[in-house]
Amino acid sequence: MKGITSISIIGTGNVAFHLGNAFFEKGIQIDFVYSRTKSKAIELASNWKSTATDALTDLNSDLILICISDDAIPEIIAQLPNNISVAYTSGAIGIHEINRPTNIGVFYPLQSFSKNKAVEIFEVPLLIEADSIELAQKLFDLAWTISRKVSFVNSAERKKYHLAAVWVNNFTNHMVYQAKSYLVKENLDFNILLPLLAETADKLKTLDPYAAQTGPAKRNDQHTIHLHEDMLNGISKELYSLISKSITDTYNSHD
Amino acid sequence: MKGITSISIIGTGNVAFHLGNAFFEKGIQIDFVYSRTKSKAIELASNWKSTATDALTDLNSDLILICISDDAIPEIIAQLPNNISVAYTSGAIGIHEINRPTNIGVFYPLQSFSKNKAVEIFEVPLLIEADSIELAQKLFDLAWTISRKVSFVNSAERKKYHLAAVWVNNFTNHMVYQAKSYLVKENLDFNILLPLLAETADKLKTLDPYAAQTGPAKRNDQHTIHLHEDMLNGISKELYSLISKSITDTYNSHD
Repeated sequence: MKGITSISIIGTGNVAFHLGNAFFEKGIQIDFVYSRTKSKAIELASNWKSTATDALTDLNSDLILICISDDAIPEIIAQLPNNISVAYTSGAIGIHEINRPTNIGVFYPLQSFSKNKAVEIFEVPLLIEADSIELAQKLFDLAWTISRKVSFVNSAERKKYHLAAVWVNNFTNHMVYQAKSYLVKENLDFNILLPLLAETADKLKTLDPYAAQTGPAKRNDQHTIHLHEDMLNGISKELYSLISKSITDTYNSHD
Repeated sequence: MKGITSISIIGTGNVAFHLGNAFFEKGIQIDFVYSRTKSKAIELASNWKSTATDALTDLNSDLILICISDDAIPEIIAQLPNNISVAYTSGAIGIHEINRPTNIGVFYPLQSFSKNKAVEIFEVPLLIEADSIELAQKLFDLAWTISRKVSFVNSAERKKYHLAAVWVNNFTNHMVYQAKSYLVKENLDFNILLPLLAETADKLKTLDPYAAQTGPAKRNDQHTIHLHEDMLNGISKELYSLISKSITDTYNSHD
C-alpha cells in the first residue's frame, strides 16, 4: 500500500498554516494551496514551495486536506473528484454527514492554533477516522510523521472530545478575557495575574479539577459572591452568577 | 524600627499551610498556631517547631497572621489585644470594614493554594496594606523575605484584583471540571486534553486573550453551538449557552 507523500491543502487559516508547516518540515510535499481568494494562498504556497490556486480542479495529490470552517466543508467536498482521497480537520462534522461515496476521512487536531504562536505539533493529539481501513491507515501514518499522539476516534466520540475542548480552551480563554477586560477598564495591571494563571494550569497536571477548586463559590461564601456581582454588570455579571452557582452546586451535591 | 521576626498563625487551611511553610523556610519564627480545633493546629505546629493552641489569649508575637475564611475574620479580630499587630489574608474585606482601632493590616497572596501542590511563593504577588505607614513597611519587609512580587495595594483595588483572580483561577478551573466530568460520564479519556490545556495557558503568556480566542462561538458557528447544546443538559447546558453568547457578543461588538 502506497502511503501519502504529497498533499494539497484547502484553506489558509490557522489550521492550514500550522499543519502545513509541520508537514513541510517533515518533507511531505505540498503540491497546491487553494483559496477562493488566491492572494491568500500565495503567501502560504511560497512558504512551502507549492503552487497557489483558486481552482479546485487544479488539486492533484495523494491527499486533499480541507482546513476550512465547518459550514463551507460540504460545498467544497461536493466539487472534488471522487478518485482522490480527501480528509477534513473538523471536530464537529460526522463522517456520514458528508455526501461523498468514497475516499473520505478525518484528520482532526485536538488543539487551538493561532498564527502568531508556535505549537509543538509532535504533542498534539491527532484523531483519525476514514470510510475505509486503507485510508484510515494512510491517514494514521501521515499523522505519525508529525505527531506521536495519533489515535483512531469515531465521529460520535470525536464530537464529544471537540465539545470538551471548547470548555478546556475556548471557555477558559474567555474567563481570562473577562478578567483582563475588567482590570483594563479599572486601570489596573493584568500582568499581576500571570503567575496565578500559570499555577492554575500547572496544578491541573497533578490535581483533578474537582480537587483543585478554591474560592468563594466553592466555600459558598455568599457575601463575597454578592460583593463581586455588585462590581460587575451586563453579561459579565450574568456569567459570574451562573458559574458561581454551578460551582456551589457541584460541591453541595458531592458533600 | 524593629521588623517582624516572629509570627503567630490563626488558621490551618491551605493559606496557613503554604505561607507558614514559606516563613519557616526563611527562618521567621512561628511562635503559635491557633485553631478552635486544637488537633488541627498540632500537625502544622509540629512542622514549624511551634506551639499549638486553642486559646487566642496565648498568641504573642511581632505579628498575628489570620488565615481563615472571610466570614470568621471579624469575630476573631474582636478577640485579639490591640497592642499586637494583626494582618489578615483576605482579598475581599476592606481594611475599614474591620472594627479595630489600630495595628491592623492586610497580607494578601494573589494565588490559589491547594495542600497537595507545592507553590513557588517567591513568584506569588503579595498585596500589602496597613492602617499605618510603620506597619505597612513592616509587612512589606516580611513579605519580601518570601516573595519578590510585593506591592502596596489599597482595599478598593485589592477587591478588584480578587474578583479578577476568581475569573482567572476559580472559573477557568470550573470550565476544566465541566470538560472532565462530561468525558468521564461518556467513558472517554480526559488526559487527551492535557496538551490543549497546557497550550491554552502557554498561549496567554504571549498573546492577549482577545487575540487567543478560537472556536465555534468566536466564529458565531451556530450549527456547532446548537449541536453542543444538544449534547449537554442542566446547568452545563446553561453555562455553554451563556458563555458562547458572551464570546459571540465580544467579537461582534468589536468587528
